[in-house]
Amino acid sequence: MNRLYHVPLSPFCRKVRLSLAEKRIEVELVEERYWEQDADFLRRNPAGKVPVLKMGGMVLAESQAICEYIEEIQPDPPLLPSTAQGRYEARRLTAWFDDKFFHEVTKKLLYERVNKKVMGQGYPDSTNVKKGAKAIKFHLDYMSWLLDQRRWLAGDQMSIADFAAAAHLSCLDYISDVDWNRSATVKDWYAKIKSRPAFRGILADQLPGFLPPRHYANLDF
Amino acid sequence: MNRLYHVPLSPFCRKVRLSLAEKRIEVELVEERYWEQDADFLRRNPAGKVPVLKMGGMVLAESQAICEYIEEIQPDPPLLPSTAQGRYEARRLTAWFDDKFFHEVTKKLLYERVNKKVMGQGYPDSTNVKKGAKAIKFHLDYMSWLLDQRRWLAGDQMSIADFAAAAHLSCLDYISDVDWNRSATVKDWYAKIKSRPAFRGILADQLPGFLPPRHYANLDF
Repeated sequence: MNRLYHVPLSPFCRKVRLSLAEKRIEVELVEERYWEQDADFLRRNPAGKVPVLKMGGMVLAESQAICEYIEEIQPDPPLLPSTAQGRYEARRLTAWFDDKFFHEVTKKLLYERVNKKVMGQGYPDSTNVKKGAKAIKFHLDYMSWLLDQRRWLAGDQMSIADFAAAAHLSCLDYISDVDWNRSATVKDWYAKIKSRPAFRGILADQLPGFLPPRHYANLDF
Repeated sequence: MNRLYHVPLSPFCRKVRLSLAEKRIEVELVEERYWEQDADFLRRNPAGKVPVLKMGGMVLAESQAICEYIEEIQPDPPLLPSTAQGRYEARRLTAWFDDKFFHEVTKKLLYERVNKKVMGQGYPDSTNVKKGAKAIKFHLDYMSWLLDQRRWLAGDQMSIADFAAAAHLSCLDYISDVDWNRSATVKDWYAKIKSRPAFRGILADQLPGFLPPRHYANLDF
């Protein structure tokens, strides 16, 4: 059985879970308290991070390297466009969310409010929270601008870029940090992606001590 | 003419420069003071970062998306291995250097010592410098462990992972922050990669106000 070591509110784990589910690759989910740097876990991934995927005798780390690998061994349904230019754009935007959005928004909101508490690292830093709450507006506007020109973020077909973006936004939505009223275009996009069967596992996530808002799992939010 | 907007001591720009040079794609280098967030530059890349590559009517950003694109349009000589497992390993290690090594080492040494001064952001934070100087030892040991089992970092052929690692280490070597005596294996690997024609441009870089040590451009260091 394939096994994914993960934590529920990690955008990187969620991107991999969405890719696996979309491609109907079954995995057993195992929660991993990676910040405790258990020796067994460090043997699986010396980077000491989740996600880690055990599949077909391999132990895979780094979310984007995992997604590219899954795409190669199971190309159907495709999560990368069919042209080199299209693939470039999907990869650029995936990096946009996993690097820029992560450092400007996810880390400043989710990590301050949730990860610090779970890891016993104290209270949220309000300067960071304020910066994150400001930065997400710019990102939602950028998404809105892209989606005014395209059906999905990287083009006319859904791609790994949409999963990367939805992975971050769904984590932030769990702690009520996304203002869905800012852009009807972005809200429509999220409603479309949220209603996919691949999203079900993510909407069922529960983190002890943190209740999601009622709209979190609601497809008509 | 292709044009690469860059700064000389950016590991991400250097990775792209090495890939382009290895594939004999000529580019004009244009230095970009990206931190001044010039409106023209932000139009080229809303992420406000270098590298940005203008090529064949396209404007490309995000170093790894650029490298994947170059690999697709100019597969020879290859910088990704021929098997899915090999490509996974090359991508995992590229992410290792561009994410983990960058945040634990490059940012704490190069950004503190050089970028802050160039950008007028004050003096190095000695706590960060100490952390970076400590962390690079672990990374050199990890490289040494990998290279004891393989000719190159990701396998028996040189790949984008070697360029990513060499891009970071060459920037740090410019400010004398690499202890080449720590591992003979790593030093041999760097000597091999340093002697490639693709590396010449990087060894000729000069940053005003920062003289490289004499061994920086020396192939027999």
